[in-house]
Amino acid sequence: MSEQRQMHLGVLLLAAGNVVSGWRLPEAQAGSQNFPLVQDVARTAERGKLDFVFFADAVNTFPGMHPSMVLRLEPLTLLGALTQCTSHIGLAATASTTYTEPYNLARMLASLDHLSGGRVAWNVVSGAFAEAAANFGTAKHPPHEERYAIAEEFVQVAKGLWDSWEEDALVMDKASGKYVDADKVHVLGHEGKFFQVKGPLNITRPPQGYPVLLQAGASDTGCHFAASVADVVFTVQQSKDAAIAFARRLYDLARGYGRDPSHLKVMPGICPIVGSTEAEAKAKLAELGALVDPVYAMKVLSERMGHDMSVFPLDGPVPTLPPSSIMQGHAITLAETAARQNMTVRELRDFVGMSMGHKLVCGSPEQVADELEEWFRDGAGDGFNLLPPYFPGGLENFVDHVVPVLQRRGLFRTEYTGRTLREHLGIPRPEHPAARKAGNALPEPA
Amino acid sequence: MSEQRQMHLGVLLLAAGNVVSGWRLPEAQAGSQNFPLVQDVARTAERGKLDFVFFADAVNTFPGMHPSMVLRLEPLTLLGALTQCTSHIGLAATASTTYTEPYNLARMLASLDHLSGGRVAWNVVSGAFAEAAANFGTAKHPPHEERYAIAEEFVQVAKGLWDSWEEDALVMDKASGKYVDADKVHVLGHEGKFFQVKGPLNITRPPQGYPVLLQAGASDTGCHFAASVADVVFTVQQSKDAAIAFARRLYDLARGYGRDPSHLKVMPGICPIVGSTEAEAKAKLAELGALVDPVYAMKVLSERMGHDMSVFPLDGPVPTLPPSSIMQGHAITLAETAARQNMTVRELRDFVGMSMGHKLVCGSPEQVADELEEWFRDGAGDGFNLLPPYFPGGLENFVDHVVPVLQRRGLFRTEYTGRTLREHLGIPRPEHPAARKAGNALPEPA
Repeated sequence: MSEQRQMHLGVLLLAAGNVVSGWRLPEAQAGSQNFPLVQDVARTAERGKLDFVFFADAVNTFPGMHPSMVLRLEPLTLLGALTQCTSHIGLAATASTTYTEPYNLARMLASLDHLSGGRVAWNVVSGAFAEAAANFGTAKHPPHEERYAIAEEFVQVAKGLWDSWEEDALVMDKASGKYVDADKVHVLGHEGKFFQVKGPLNITRPPQGYPVLLQAGASDTGCHFAASVADVVFTVQQSKDAAIAFARRLYDLARGYGRDPSHLKVMPGICPIVGSTEAEAKAKLAELGALVDPVYAMKVLSERMGHDMSVFPLDGPVPTLPPSSIMQGHAITLAETAARQNMTVRELRDFVGMSMGHKLVCGSPEQVADELEEWFRDGAGDGFNLLPPYFPGGLENFVDHVVPVLQRRGLFRTEYTGRTLREHLGIPRPEHPAARKAGNALPEPA
Repeated sequence: MSEQRQMHLGVLLLAAGNVVSGWRLPEAQAGSQNFPLVQDVARTAERGKLDFVFFADAVNTFPGMHPSMVLRLEPLTLLGALTQCTSHIGLAATASTTYTEPYNLARMLASLDHLSGGRVAWNVVSGAFAEAAANFGTAKHPPHEERYAIAEEFVQVAKGLWDSWEEDALVMDKASGKYVDADKVHVLGHEGKFFQVKGPLNITRPPQGYPVLLQAGASDTGCHFAASVADVVFTVQQSKDAAIAFARRLYDLARGYGRDPSHLKVMPGICPIVGSTEAEAKAKLAELGALVDPVYAMKVLSERMGHDMSVFPLDGPVPTLPPSSIMQGHAITLAETAARQNMTVRELRDFVGMSMGHKLVCGSPEQVADELEEWFRDGAGDGFNLLPPYFPGGLENFVDHVVPVLQRRGLFRTEYTGRTLREHLGIPRPEHPAARKAGNALPEPA
């Protein structure tokens, strides 16, 4: 029993809920910027011993956007606040490699890792929304392949900056007056295609060495990027077989990059709708469905597909479209799902309106646990990224009723055994690289 | 008595102390990244009913830097944490307009203002250290005048972004399903010399309208910038007469920009060294002086002057130098002080090593209060920015022994009467600009 492999669980905290209509339920707390709600949900997740709570992000908005995305507390400052309201759970923020500077972002993430005692993760995104470019004076959102090339170099720079200070470089010896050991502080001197960053960073190495890296690549380039750098990979999957194939592919790619595949955690997204009985869960699903605004749902579908879907006949088949340059993971999975089930545009719209493209798991606590267990045991990943339909109840139902079932089955922890997110995930802390070439050390202050 | 004008007090939290050797005192807690210390100091400041705690910043480092600056928690994420550890005190972070993007910074500050319930301030700096450029792939630190032009446009963009959402644009009406009122969400469409930012921002208007703006301009350009946009102006002053002249100049300039000068708070920096008797304070000053490393002090002097001062004869007079392009406020005040007191380079070095160029006020609680009262009553400003020599004791002594004297004299509040930093400072909340031209409103989602 003690040897049984356990699943990892994270929760995506979209404050107005994952289902487009989630906020409209009588028991839901609306509020894109409602910090008391966010704090309450993070504490519920910690009570459930979840690995992490995770915040999505985008650096643009428009009034017709998903209610959970149209307005948000900024994730990095929000994580700062949550470091003081939680004690064990991991805290994951999305940040874009296209619209931030590596020096600024690396130090914020390091700062958060210090403030949280090693509980921080960075969801590396290259920026899904082309509209963001207009907020950054950039003529054009860089194309997909270039965005990944930028992201790759960005992560390399961030890691280099996190290694600026050797672990024992901060001396603070009152007797001698020596504050830092200059021999143990290194310039980076990065001169790349997209970034030139000298360093050193103005903060010591994060408690976790590097914050945990999350990624959600789904295109071929994205999968390679995720397999080469990510600790956790999010994925959109509707069928168990496709999920198994995806996980295997990621582990194989990771092996190809010289990594131990057990250090790469693949987590499909799951929208859990839990009732005390199957009937109750189905009634909740119907209630949510009845509240979905079809206009919103069509916008979300178009966003997910990377094409305006409202131009096609509603009751015609879902057309075959050229690849999206935006969110390929969603586009691929939705196209597959539509093809498998012969969906019309209307059906796909309603499906996305409910689940945002993620897998709905609806039923009694035992039924939900059964489905998660089956996917997990059959190799569809290392756990799940939960996308509750609304808050706070959508997560409370899972934590209070499904987590105990998973715990009784030995599939999930009953207590945190570590303090850092890396410890929760069972992935090693990267050691500081061997002392670099001597010429790179900065001279002692003369 | 109730009509008596009261002073405002902020504290600069340089974790290793303001005096270069502060951290070496037996009772000091060293620790550039020591969050428990920062939290403790912020709570002490709040116990003392201070207006705000303030964090300096720079986006570069080198091992010989001032111990308080060489390593630091990143200010914006740090403020996020402090929003949850404090309830009333203002929280001020420095952030550079040269090395950040307006969209990113405006939303972080808005997010912090929401998280803190309206207690956030932004110390607008154009980036004092030329070495920072190398961390941002920029060939060259922009020259002084251009940095101010960038800062001016940056602040204009930030204010425009903070006004993206009218106060009642977030509807969240469960019955109708209307989440936002699109008519009340505005694009900015800024097309300037340095920035092109479309907007809208993805967060509602900050509780304070705009976060409080701090500035420390001292050059002619800097004074104009401060007088036109700042709510609080920090200044380095050694003589009361110069401080009075500076404050008057700022109020006059503000009037010239059409502002009510009583809404501009001028706060000279003061390094308070408080003993239970004058003798005890002087002994502490001597103890601190004996611990100053002259190599460090010379580096700080060179930084402050914008010139390498170690090339001049130590016991010769302080040479007349061309204006620094970096920290003009410090350079001007130090040159004046050296001229007034016929200082040698060695004397100026030791002076800076102690005070960082700010005014030392050393004595019993009554003596320190006397000097602050005299400056305040004579019009040298609206209060003081405290730069304690070390932490936590350097602030505790002030809060426990000087604040009560000021309170007995009716010169400082005995309780917070407001909740926002604007309320503490007695400056109005900027109203949302009248509805913009109708064509600028985004269409309802079709």
